Amino acid sequence: MLSKNQIKYITQLKQKKYREQQNVFIAEGIKVIQELINAPLELVHLYSTKEWQTKLPATLFTMISEAELKKISSLTTPNQCLALFKMKEIKTLKNKGLKLALDAVRDPGNLGTIIRLCDWFGIEDLICSKETVDVYNPKVVQATMGSLTRVNVFYTDLEEYLKRSESPVFGTFMEGENIYKQSLPNEGIIVMGNEANGISKEIEDLVTRKVSIPRFGDLQQTESLNVATAVAIILSEFKRGN
Amino acid sequence: MLSKNQIKYITQLKQKKYREQQNVFIAEGIKVIQELINAPLELVHLYSTKEWQTKLPATLFTMISEAELKKISSLTTPNQCLALFKMKEIKTLKNKGLKLALDAVRDPGNLGTIIRLCDWFGIEDLICSKETVDVYNPKVVQATMGSLTRVNVFYTDLEEYLKRSESPVFGTFMEGENIYKQSLPNEGIIVMGNEANGISKEIEDLVTRKVSIPRFGDLQQTESLNVATAVAIILSEFKRGN
Repeated sequence: MLSKNQIKYITQLKQKKYREQQNVFIAEGIKVIQELINAPLELVHLYSTKEWQTKLPATLFTMISEAELKKISSLTTPNQCLALFKMKEIKTLKNKGLKLALDAVRDPGNLGTIIRLCDWFGIEDLICSKETVDVYNPKVVQATMGSLTRVNVFYTDLEEYLKRSESPVFGTFMEGENIYKQSLPNEGIIVMGNEANGISKEIEDLVTRKVSIPRFGDLQQTESLNVATAVAIILSEFKRGN
Repeated sequence: MLSKNQIKYITQLKQKKYREQQNVFIAEGIKVIQELINAPLELVHLYSTKEWQTKLPATLFTMISEAELKKISSLTTPNQCLALFKMKEIKTLKNKGLKLALDAVRDPGNLGTIIRLCDWFGIEDLICSKETVDVYNPKVVQATMGSLTRVNVFYTDLEEYLKRSESPVFGTFMEGENIYKQSLPNEGIIVMGNEANGISKEIEDLVTRKVSIPRFGDLQQTESLNVATAVAIILSEFKRGN
């Protein structure tokens, strides 16, 4: 049974401002919640329409109805349970290795998918400009499918960060060099741009190697790839070896 | 101004059954609608909160309010206009070249992104099992960003189709051979499976070459890639050349 105050508290956590005040975020669905518990992240509370598979302290668990879950869920089709977790501490970034940087990626599904890709390809640090969607947005958490706990997502002034960096900075541009023909290093920063506008002018000026993913369609009318699928192709190229 | 009957008609078109009865589907947003008009697909009607950039016959155009658009839109944030189009004729499949086949891909965003990838990589035929989400689902149309008109999407009994085919059939499996080390042909069918369950047993039996996308993460806990990002990596590998 949920009180009005609990519903209000959870609903407020859908907003970044409240998440940051409380240092708490929402995760939904059995698989994601299980991964976060195992990570381990600190569970604040679990609300579920069914008993949880492993015994939890009574103070951490509340059985709720389907109707109550619908009230607090951000999903069109709520999936049995919703949990609140403490945000994880931001670790310091590694200085070595390949990093991905996002210049104002706005879509929660895209960020979630990109985090999953970082996890798959062993990219430990994901640097996000301050205009990038919040990693603790419920839809991002959902789309990461648990990968969230294995990738350091670090928000910063991207322009300042790149200015201070000594690594090569890669960016995709129509006029860039064919990525399939490049020898690609094990160290560097790959910058990906906003869904509608690509990489901003300020960041473009800091890119030291422009690359492109060739198109193969006859008609050549496809304007662009979705940013998450472009990340998939680029990370695959960096990691596949020659 | 929209009548109750018009609202009902458009709302019904969100269901596959009505789309097929009427042979009409919904597209939303300026960019997608413009691409479909240019394709050209037959415009049935355009509803917009602003004047359209090019003059349309009065019988094809209705100005509506933001509130009315909200009533008929499938989007959380409706984007200025919604149009109805006649479905395009299904062309016959080419016998040559590389094809992609989907075994029960259910998520509209995934199908839309996959169609966009086919367009980018010059895959002309996309074969969908009957359990795959409908290509004219408004969210699929939205996610294709117009690529819909440049890819033949063909629904069929996938098992029967593969049984009759003489091309090699590729499928991704954990135990498959490292795709980065394979010599990949210019002809064949690449099968991708359902989001939760992968490729079904019946279809697996028809796969002649099992491949895998290697994971690079240290922890190796990522269970799987999103199907659209896996398609991106696989099509990239088939097309990049050695």
